[in-house]
Amino acid sequence: MQLKVREVNISSGGPLIAIISLNDANILDLKALDRIKIKKDRKEIVVAVDISKGNRVKKGQIGLFEEVSKLLKLKNNSVVIVSVEPKPKSLQYIKKKLDGGRLNKTEVNEIVKDIVENRLTDIEITYFISGCYVNGMSLYESAYLTEAIVDNGKKLNLNKYPILDKHSISGVPGNRTTMIIIPIVTAMGYIMPKTSTRSITSVSGTADTFETLAPVEHSVIDIRKIINKVGGCMVWGGAMELASADDKLIKVEKTISLDPEGIMLASILAKKSSVGATHVILDIPWGRGSKVETIKIAKRLRNKFEVLGKLLGMEIKTIFSDGRQPVGNGIGPALEARDVLLVLENKGPLDLKEKSVKMASMLLSMVGVKNSYKKALGVLESGLALKKMKEIIKAQNGNPNITSDKIKVGKFRYDVKAKTFGVVRGISNKNIVKIAKAAGAPEDKGAGIYFNIKLNNKVKKNQILFSIFAENKKRLQYAKQIYNNSKVINIEK
Amino acid sequence: MQLKVREVNISSGGPLIAIISLNDANILDLKALDRIKIKKDRKEIVVAVDISKGNRVKKGQIGLFEEVSKLLKLKNNSVVIVSVEPKPKSLQYIKKKLDGGRLNKTEVNEIVKDIVENRLTDIEITYFISGCYVNGMSLYESAYLTEAIVDNGKKLNLNKYPILDKHSISGVPGNRTTMIIIPIVTAMGYIMPKTSTRSITSVSGTADTFETLAPVEHSVIDIRKIINKVGGCMVWGGAMELASADDKLIKVEKTISLDPEGIMLASILAKKSSVGATHVILDIPWGRGSKVETIKIAKRLRNKFEVLGKLLGMEIKTIFSDGRQPVGNGIGPALEARDVLLVLENKGPLDLKEKSVKMASMLLSMVGVKNSYKKALGVLESGLALKKMKEIIKAQNGNPNITSDKIKVGKFRYDVKAKTFGVVRGISNKNIVKIAKAAGAPEDKGAGIYFNIKLNNKVKKNQILFSIFAENKKRLQYAKQIYNNSKVINIEK
Repeated sequence: MQLKVREVNISSGGPLIAIISLNDANILDLKALDRIKIKKDRKEIVVAVDISKGNRVKKGQIGLFEEVSKLLKLKNNSVVIVSVEPKPKSLQYIKKKLDGGRLNKTEVNEIVKDIVENRLTDIEITYFISGCYVNGMSLYESAYLTEAIVDNGKKLNLNKYPILDKHSISGVPGNRTTMIIIPIVTAMGYIMPKTSTRSITSVSGTADTFETLAPVEHSVIDIRKIINKVGGCMVWGGAMELASADDKLIKVEKTISLDPEGIMLASILAKKSSVGATHVILDIPWGRGSKVETIKIAKRLRNKFEVLGKLLGMEIKTIFSDGRQPVGNGIGPALEARDVLLVLENKGPLDLKEKSVKMASMLLSMVGVKNSYKKALGVLESGLALKKMKEIIKAQNGNPNITSDKIKVGKFRYDVKAKTFGVVRGISNKNIVKIAKAAGAPEDKGAGIYFNIKLNNKVKKNQILFSIFAENKKRLQYAKQIYNNSKVINIEK
Repeated sequence: MQLKVREVNISSGGPLIAIISLNDANILDLKALDRIKIKKDRKEIVVAVDISKGNRVKKGQIGLFEEVSKLLKLKNNSVVIVSVEPKPKSLQYIKKKLDGGRLNKTEVNEIVKDIVENRLTDIEITYFISGCYVNGMSLYESAYLTEAIVDNGKKLNLNKYPILDKHSISGVPGNRTTMIIIPIVTAMGYIMPKTSTRSITSVSGTADTFETLAPVEHSVIDIRKIINKVGGCMVWGGAMELASADDKLIKVEKTISLDPEGIMLASILAKKSSVGATHVILDIPWGRGSKVETIKIAKRLRNKFEVLGKLLGMEIKTIFSDGRQPVGNGIGPALEARDVLLVLENKGPLDLKEKSVKMASMLLSMVGVKNSYKKALGVLESGLALKKMKEIIKAQNGNPNITSDKIKVGKFRYDVKAKTFGVVRGISNKNIVKIAKAAGAPEDKGAGIYFNIKLNNKVKKNQILFSIFAENKKRLQYAKQIYNNSKVINIEK
């Protein structure tokens, strides 16, 4: 069938979709989200069809979202040839999963491949996630999913051993241990090619924070060069396309805050696997107000990670940490980067320092280092880690002469003072995140919150509990407004 | 936050959606499919947000699909005020269903209301359907769903008793009993306000077929007038908006051919309930190649329908019929209408006549008519049913002088002949549907197939098995092409 192109001036956000009229759909016996092949000269592409019931797309027309018109280089009124294609096989496997079946490696790979290549629509991906959520996933399925995500993305291929990595379950503001662990272990000669996320729901991801010191968007080739030179890096995983299936799964999961455990495990481990990690330290912060609320859940999660790690040929060790309050004092890219430099300069917040050294030492002992805590602490306190940090900053094209006192934080500031004396009995991570984001983080690098207190600290009336920083007045106002409507700190007399 | 409108030249197909930049989303702490309120002067509307990661929608802009810009009467560059809204409560209930919970009446109603009012996105509706599919639905949940679909649509409110209705599980071509049952029972003074579907996957729905005799799109007010005048009608349910939630559920289900039983039951019974039906005859065709493959499944389905009917205050009786082959000879709107008139004129295909009279008699006996088969047959054979049919055609603004020989079928014809002698052992309903649709049905009213044989008939070599009709040459060619690639009739020597 010949149809005339009508360009739709927007992208579908991923899936390849074309819209045809109900009339033409009936002729081709197509239902919504059936597949068609669009052919123009020698180019062809298979897309899902949406069916226009009103006047959106008329008989004889085909509406193309930007993704499709770009791929085929089509303009308004180009004539294309349309024919019916079978639906992707992966849909059968999605149905199988919904029906409670177990998927094998080939089936999982087919689904992931189709997701990566934009052959599945949001509705179809939702069915996959629903199946995984409601029927659960075996650890084997999670392992297949991890491998499929890795195989359908790029890989770092360093050909070295061992390769160290770490992961923290998110949800705790200021938890920037990565930026201290890496300088320590790489200063000791180990390889740690860390890819991090940007903020999704948090104030700042490691990538956002490190970006205040050096660029974090590097190609796979550049990262190999950086690693060969300095042993470690802190880059944004997104720029490398290591795990693009993952982003698409996350989008659909977030819509009703589903986080099917099997997918979450695969999503995290795929990022480790794609850099070739052999030893991973996993931080599971737990406690009221964090993602993992009880130690029981934390332990169950640890077991799954560790078993799954074995299936994937990765050694994983876990640390349980305090998830009830921020780590360090700064929250927001620049404020966190300053904390990190302060720790490396031996002036920093003690909780961040201690946690980082502990994690570094666990990682080191996994690869056979004796007295690892003492050694890690020595490397940090002797300034070797700071020196290494500057090398990494330089290798990533940042300014190696940076010091903690040169970091610029937002010049607009609002101090929140204690309305009463008492003891700090509760800190709301959730509301801290809201306020810091309202202040402009992570886009405005200097925006965020500086915290002066920890749980169980005694406070005096009018003592500054925390300060909100913003880069402009409007955002500070907005953050104050959010602050006024939310409870951040619970002080009991 | 103030944003400038950028119109998107397409509709979302239902859900109210706006697109904002990742920048602005971070400021408002929004994730994809969170909700925002858009305000312009005194008008406001709550919509789901999609987040643009590329260059689709720039910082400071808001992209609006047609549904939204029309509702607020917004043009390009209008300035609107955007604020964060909580997500609809119905999402919690959808999550509950995914988690294996049972929904109560209020919860089901909230979900359906939000679907009808376009407050849920396709992804969210998919999660609902997945939950119903994987965890199953109790009969109570199906009853609540039925009531919710009815309560969130229009109702006919005839204030009469009894009100008769019928339903056939689809999948059998040519099964146009409705158009014979209605004239019979209404000729006997009973009320039967029938709403039918147009073809979704079939060659022709009752609405498509009756449309060759009279218009089928009437408002609820007009239908009341028609019923008061002639006791029965055959109208397209879609025009009345009796069950608009249903259409949206169906769209998402079809994408991977899911048909969660609990939703299917509710969807069918909602259409009966919205016209106030008190007695319903249900036709379950079964057998190889039909929707219901075994008598066991047919019986299970009957039980569910009958129990659910009781919960909803509706008496339902079931007939099991032959689903392995078409009913009547004609397949396609005009060809089926001709069969129906032939039956009413006492000349028609016997299988269609017999099945219709049987169903009519069962329906009549449900409301206390004695000797109902004999009476139904009498009304049909005496011409009273034909007279009533003409009254209904007239009441729906059709031409009451129509006779079977005046029905126009497609003038392009292709006869399919037996390549061998033998006995007909198999007829593929599925492939009949494909060919008839390729020939132009149901849009081209005269297109379709005329069948000369039934299962177990003996055929001679070169005997015409069936003829394909089309309204134009191109469509006939296309249908022939589909025929050449598919097996329709299995003849064994």
